[in-house]
Order: sequence, then C-alpha cells, then structure tokens
Amino acid sequence: MRLEFLFLGKTRESYLAAGIEDFRQRLQHYAPVEIKTLKEKRWPKNYAAEKIMAEQGEVLRANIPKSSLLVALAQTGRQFASEEMAGLLGQWADQGRKGVVFAIGGHLGLAPALLKAADLVLSLSKMTLTHEMTRLLLLEQIYRAYTILAGEQYHK
Amino acid sequence: MRLEFLFLGKTRESYLAAGIEDFRQRLQHYAPVEIKTLKEKRWPKNYAAEKIMAEQGEVLRANIPKSSLLVALAQTGRQFASEEMAGLLGQWADQGRKGVVFAIGGHLGLAPALLKAADLVLSLSKMTLTHEMTRLLLLEQIYRAYTILAGEQYHK
Repeated sequence: MRLEFLFLGKTRESYLAAGIEDFRQRLQHYAPVEIKTLKEKRWPKNYAAEKIMAEQGEVLRANIPKSSLLVALAQTGRQFASEEMAGLLGQWADQGRKGVVFAIGGHLGLAPALLKAADLVLSLSKMTLTHEMTRLLLLEQIYRAYTILAGEQYHK
Repeated sequence: MRLEFLFLGKTRESYLAAGIEDFRQRLQHYAPVEIKTLKEKRWPKNYAAEKIMAEQGEVLRANIPKSSLLVALAQTGRQFASEEMAGLLGQWADQGRKGVVFAIGGHLGLAPALLKAADLVLSLSKMTLTHEMTRLLLLEQIYRAYTILAGEQYHK
C-alpha cells in the first residue's frame, strides 16, 4: 500500500525538515512513500481565511488519486493510540487498498469540505501544533505503526 | 515563575536537540528557563523495568526543588488544549508559585510513585511518542502557552 504525504508549502524549519526526511527514509523500508509538497500561493492581504482554505482545499484535492484513501489531519479529528493506528493501516492493506494520502493543511488548517471528503479525520493531539511540527509527528507515527505491524522494536 | 525541564539522558537525535534548543532560547524571553539533563545510568541487562523506573524516579525527585510544582509527562495523563495549558501556567504565576518542573522519563517512562507525587500528570497525545520527541513537543507547547499569555501571535 502506497503512502503519500501531501503538504502545503515547504518545511521551513531546518530541524523539522531533517526529522521528516529521516522518517521518510526509514518508512521506505516498509512501503513506497512519497512526500508531495505543493507550492503555497501568496494571497492578497484582505483575502478571507475561509476563501484561502477553500481554494487550498481544491488544490489539495486535485492531487489526491481517486483510488487512494484520504486521511485529513485536523486538531478536531479523532485521536488514535499508536497500536490502533497500526491496526487501521494493517486493515487497509489487507483490504487491498492501493494507497493512503495523508493531507496536512497550511497554518489555517484544512477546509471543512476536505475534512468532509476524508475517509478519516485524524488528530495527533488536543494541543495546537504548527503544521510543520504536525508533519514530523505524523511521519514518526506512521513509521511507528509499520514497526508495530512488523513486530519490530522501536523505542519510546 | 521559573521553568525547569528535567530530562533523563541527553537528546541523541541531533534535529530534535536543535529544535529543543531553539525553543529554550525563545522561551527565555518570557521566563527563566533551565533544561537539566540527568545522566542516564547503565543498568544490568536482567534488571527489572520497574526497578529501573523506581530508581530513576528517585534520582529525578532529588532534583526537584520542594518549592516547585511538578508536572510529570505520561501518555496516560490529562490532555490540555494549548489555551488551557496557557491558562494553567498563568494561574500558577498569579498565585506566586516559584517554579514549575516538567519531568520526562527515559524510554520506560516515569515511575508510578513520581506520577503520584506530581501536581499534574500531563499527556501530549494519545499516541506513543519517543521521550526525545516529547521533549521537543513540550518545549514548543510551553513556548506557545507564553505567547498566548502575552497575547502574541505565533503560527499554527
């Protein structure tokens, strides 16, 4: 099952970029992985947040293959224990799903329409996180899920 | 109010160390901050996890000033939204509390006795995180809390 991470704008914090790249490489041992970083458009200053999110949502959606499941990241989503996340990914793979796209919005978050269209709205924490920190945390958790599925030890 | 972060063993992942140092410096603009990294003892191979945790707990406890509040990090603890965390820190400062110690255990986590002794057992996520990732996430959240208290804008 193919894993795709869909981000808006490049990761600016160099230490987060380093961590994300580390987990991308590690995750590759378990599944085909692609990180797709879409260009972040510049918006006029007085452009409403809702309009920006909606337009960003359309751009993201255009990059999600129809055959893939969509996991949308949002603070208001559902939290999973790492073992539950592993179970879910294992189940999807067993069902013969082609791929999963994990979409993280910009600093405004994902548009409501995209959350509605998602197969799963996933929350990593009750806390507000930067969208760049969310990237690192998500990569780490998906990597952890695959080590759990493989029955391998990974530290805490 | 003085902030102290109590860690067991140095941060090995260089990108996490870089992020932690970044937030330590930023946090210093709001409050006196100290990161105390205790040496991690090597244990005999057949030493029981409970015994290691108990001994580590004693070492950590010896480094917590009596006048400080203790926030112990554990996956099983209570989750707070960032605004709630900010509210709690603001409340403690208003009460004239001298300091807060945030304690993170090693990969085994904190001993039950230490969790019991804590003023707050804090969970950052339902997911299992490495204790090094927990350090970065915690520093970021405490920094975020102070930006919220200061009414400053900090990105998402």
